[in-house]
Amino acid sequence: MADKKERGEKSARGDRPKGITVKKSENFSEWYTQAITNTEFVDYTAVSGGLAFRPDGYFAWETMQRATDALFKEVGIQNVYFPMLIPERLLNKEKEHVKGFSPEVAWVTHAGDSKLDERLAIRPTSETIMYESYAKWIRSWRDLPMRYNQWNSVIRWEFKHPTPLLRSREFLWNEGHTAFASQEEADLERDVILKIYEMITRDYLALPGILGKKTNKEKFAGALASYSIEHLLPDGLVVQGPDFHSDGQNFAKAFEITFIDRDEQRKYVHQNTFAISTRELGVLLATHGDDKGIIIPPRIARIQIVIVPIYNNENMATVLMQAKALFMRLGVKFRTHVDDRDIYSPGWKFNEWELKGIPIRIELGEKEIKAMDVVVVRRDTGEKIKVKMADIELKIGELLNEINSNLYMRARKFLEANIHHAKNFDELKDTIKGRGGIVQAPWCGSTECEDKVKEESGAKISNMPFDKQGDIKGRKCIYCGNEAKHIANFAKSY
Amino acid sequence: MADKKERGEKSARGDRPKGITVKKSENFSEWYTQAITNTEFVDYTAVSGGLAFRPDGYFAWETMQRATDALFKEVGIQNVYFPMLIPERLLNKEKEHVKGFSPEVAWVTHAGDSKLDERLAIRPTSETIMYESYAKWIRSWRDLPMRYNQWNSVIRWEFKHPTPLLRSREFLWNEGHTAFASQEEADLERDVILKIYEMITRDYLALPGILGKKTNKEKFAGALASYSIEHLLPDGLVVQGPDFHSDGQNFAKAFEITFIDRDEQRKYVHQNTFAISTRELGVLLATHGDDKGIIIPPRIARIQIVIVPIYNNENMATVLMQAKALFMRLGVKFRTHVDDRDIYSPGWKFNEWELKGIPIRIELGEKEIKAMDVVVVRRDTGEKIKVKMADIELKIGELLNEINSNLYMRARKFLEANIHHAKNFDELKDTIKGRGGIVQAPWCGSTECEDKVKEESGAKISNMPFDKQGDIKGRKCIYCGNEAKHIANFAKSY
Repeated sequence: MADKKERGEKSARGDRPKGITVKKSENFSEWYTQAITNTEFVDYTAVSGGLAFRPDGYFAWETMQRATDALFKEVGIQNVYFPMLIPERLLNKEKEHVKGFSPEVAWVTHAGDSKLDERLAIRPTSETIMYESYAKWIRSWRDLPMRYNQWNSVIRWEFKHPTPLLRSREFLWNEGHTAFASQEEADLERDVILKIYEMITRDYLALPGILGKKTNKEKFAGALASYSIEHLLPDGLVVQGPDFHSDGQNFAKAFEITFIDRDEQRKYVHQNTFAISTRELGVLLATHGDDKGIIIPPRIARIQIVIVPIYNNENMATVLMQAKALFMRLGVKFRTHVDDRDIYSPGWKFNEWELKGIPIRIELGEKEIKAMDVVVVRRDTGEKIKVKMADIELKIGELLNEINSNLYMRARKFLEANIHHAKNFDELKDTIKGRGGIVQAPWCGSTECEDKVKEESGAKISNMPFDKQGDIKGRKCIYCGNEAKHIANFAKSY
Repeated sequence: MADKKERGEKSARGDRPKGITVKKSENFSEWYTQAITNTEFVDYTAVSGGLAFRPDGYFAWETMQRATDALFKEVGIQNVYFPMLIPERLLNKEKEHVKGFSPEVAWVTHAGDSKLDERLAIRPTSETIMYESYAKWIRSWRDLPMRYNQWNSVIRWEFKHPTPLLRSREFLWNEGHTAFASQEEADLERDVILKIYEMITRDYLALPGILGKKTNKEKFAGALASYSIEHLLPDGLVVQGPDFHSDGQNFAKAFEITFIDRDEQRKYVHQNTFAISTRELGVLLATHGDDKGIIIPPRIARIQIVIVPIYNNENMATVLMQAKALFMRLGVKFRTHVDDRDIYSPGWKFNEWELKGIPIRIELGEKEIKAMDVVVVRRDTGEKIKVKMADIELKIGELLNEINSNLYMRARKFLEANIHHAKNFDELKDTIKGRGGIVQAPWCGSTECEDKVKEESGAKISNMPFDKQGDIKGRKCIYCGNEAKHIANFAKSY
C-alpha cells in the first residue's frame, strides 16, 4: 500500500505492542499467564492470589452475570445479600461442611486494635450464615419454596499454587440457596438451573461442557449429591465449571430449618445450592485464545468492533471523518471503537487489537471510501471480508453471531476429540499419561476403585456424564472388573 | 360490606400482621428498628452489625445501583474489580488515610491453621489497593483520564452502637476512582457526579438533600476537599449521603502515580473519588415511613402494586378470576402481585401491605367487577380512588409518578422547615438542644470555632451549602464574631 512509509514513521514507539512470547501449543501454562495479563483483561495485584479485573475483564463478568441474573429472575429466584463475615460457631454447625472448608478459611481476629471475642470467617460460601436466617424466616408451607440467590465475592485460601481466574483465592460468583417442602420439588429445580448455566456458557462464553453427576468423593461438602458442567482445557486438564448441589435435609437438620406442612406436621425443608463464578472467564481465555492473544466472544466483549482508519498525510482528514461517520452508524447497534491514535501505525494497531481479542476489526482507507466498502477482519479466523457500506449493519450482526458459533463449535470439536475410551486400566493410564484429556470408562461406583485409579494414574472422576448412562448394561468396572454402575469421565484436573 | 363476616372467619391467625408498636413521632429510634426488620426489608443476623438484605431490600439497592451504574457509563466511567484484602504495608502508604481508617479495620491474620506473614485488611475503601495498580497502568497522557469504578462491599468496624443501614459495619457501595492530567479537568468531574447522585436520590429514592462542601475537619481522610449530599432525619439529626472527594495529588505522590505529559515532563496525576451506599436505604425508610410501616418509593419497589381480591364463598371463583385477569393486564407494565392467600381477611392483608410499604393497593370485589371499576389506594396518602377499568394502566402510571413526587416534596418540606437561622451562638445552642434540625449560620472558617461549637452545642458542620454562599458579605462568624467566610450548616449527626 502507498501509505506504508508514512505509517511506519507514525509509530513513535516503533515496537509491537507487548504481546505473547510463547506458543500456546508449546507452553500452555506460560501462554496462559501472559494471555490474561498482557492483554489488559485482568492483572496481578499486591495481594497474592488476588486479581484486579480491568474494564474488559469486568465487562465480561458483568455481562454474563446480568444475563444469568435475568434468567434466575425469570424462573422465580430473588436476590438477597448476607454479611461477608461468619462467626466461627456458625461455620462449625454442619460437620462435613466445616471439614471441607475450614482448611482454607481466612480468619478475622482483630478489629482496629481490639482482639475479637470470637473469630470471624470471611465467607468461603454462605450456607451457614444464610441458613440461620432461613430457620427464622420459614414457618409454614406457605413460605415455601424460598428461592434466594446472592452475587458476591468469596475467599478460599488455596495453599497450592493459585492459578489466576481458574484457582484464585478470591472469586466472584452467584450462590443460589433454595428451600422446598419436598425432595421431589427440590429435584425439579436441578435441570432448570443446569439448563440456565448451559445456556450462559454456550451463548455468552461460547464454551461447551460436560453435564453430569459428581461422585460421592468429589461432591460438595455437606451435599447429598452434586452435579456439574466440566470443561476441558487445551492442556488436557479438566476444570469444574458451574455446579448444582442437592443438599437434602443435611443443613436443614443442622440449622433447624423446619416448617408446618399442610398436614400440620413440623418437617425439615429440602435444599439446593448452585453457583457460577469468574473461573469461567479463565476457561474462556484458555479455550479460545491463540498465539496472537486472547479472543473475547462477541456478546461479552466490551468492544465488539474496532475501526482502524488507514491514512497518509494527504488524505488524513477525509479518512478520519469517514471513520467517525462509520463509528456513529455502527455505534447505534454495536459496541464500537475508533482507534485514531496518531502515534501508531495501522499494523501496530492490528496487532494490539488482535492481542486483546476484539471480535471484529474494520479497516477503512481511501481505497475503501472510494469503492464504498470496508474490509472486515474476523479475529477468530483471520478471514478478511469485503463488505459494501450499504450492508454493513446487517453483515456485522451476522458475523458477530457466526463468531460466537464458530468459537463454540471449535471448542466442542476439541472437547469431543479429547474424550477417549479405554479397553482396560492400562489403556486408561497410558492415555492419561500420554495425550491427556478425558477417558470415558465404566466404573463400579466404589470409592475404593476411584481412589486406586487416582493413585495409579493421577486421574480423578470429573463427573458421570448424563448422556452416557444408557450405555452401562453388561459392562465391567475399568479398575476392578466388577459390574459397572456408571460411565465415568476420568481426567486430571485443576 | 356484605362479606365482612366471611372475611373475618377466613383469618386463621386472627391477629394483625406483626406490625410496629410505637409511634414514629414519639419514639423514632424504636420505630426505626421495628420499621426496618418487621417489614421484611432487612434483618439482623448472627454477626453483630451485619445485616441480611431480604428481597425487598436488595431489590431496592439493586435498582438504584443499576440506575447509577447506567449514568456512570453514560458519562464514560468503566467498571473494574479489585481484591477485598489489602496488605497492611499498602494501607500505611498515605499518612492521613491510614490514620482515618486503621482504627476501624477488620484484620485477617490467619488462613486455615496458618498465621499469615503480613496482616491483611478487609477493604474499608480501596484507594490503596487500586492506586498501586494505577501507578503501573498509567504511563502517558494518552492513558488519561482513567475513570474507573467498582461496586462492592466494605467493612468499617464501628465501635459505637451500629445503627442498621445508617451505620452498619458492612455496607454495599460504589467507589469511583478517577485520575486526570490536570486539576482543572479533575474538578470538572465534581458537578457531573454530584448531579448523578442528586438525580438518583431524587428520582429513585424520593430523597432531598443539601449539596455542599465539607469542612477541612470533616473531609475524607487523604482528600484535599470533600463534597456531600446531607440528609436530615425525622429525629432532627443529619446523616451524610453520597459524597465526592477531590484528592489532588496526595495519593498520586504516596503511590507514585505519574505520567509523561505532552510536554514530555513526568507529572503526578490528579484524582477524585466518590461513593453512594446502602446507607441511603436507611435514610429512605426513616424519611418516608409512618405509623403504619415503611413506604417504598415506586421506582425501587419490588412490588409496586398489590391486588387484593374481596370475595365470599359464593363469588370467590369469579372474583379470583377477575383478579388474575387484572394481574395479567397490569403485569405487562408494572411489578404486580395478587394476594390470593385464603387464610387472611382483606383487612389483614391491607395492614400487611401497608406495613411493607407497597406503593399501590387495588381492591377488587363483586361490586367493582359489576361497575367495571376498581378501588385504588395510595400508600403515601391513604387516599382511595375509584378508577374505571378502561383507564387503569394510564392512571396507575400517573399515580406511581405522583407518589414519587409527593414523597419527595413531603420530605423536602420537612427539610426546609427544619433549616433554622440564629442571630447569635446562644440561639444556635438553644435550637440544637430544643427542636434540633439544622442551623444555618455564618462561620469564619477556623477549625477552632468549629471545635468550640461542637463542644458547647453538640453540633458539627454537616457541610457548607453551595446555594447559600452568595449571602456571605458583611456577615460575622456565629461563634467568634470575626468576618465570616462561609455559610455553614450546623447540626447533630449520626
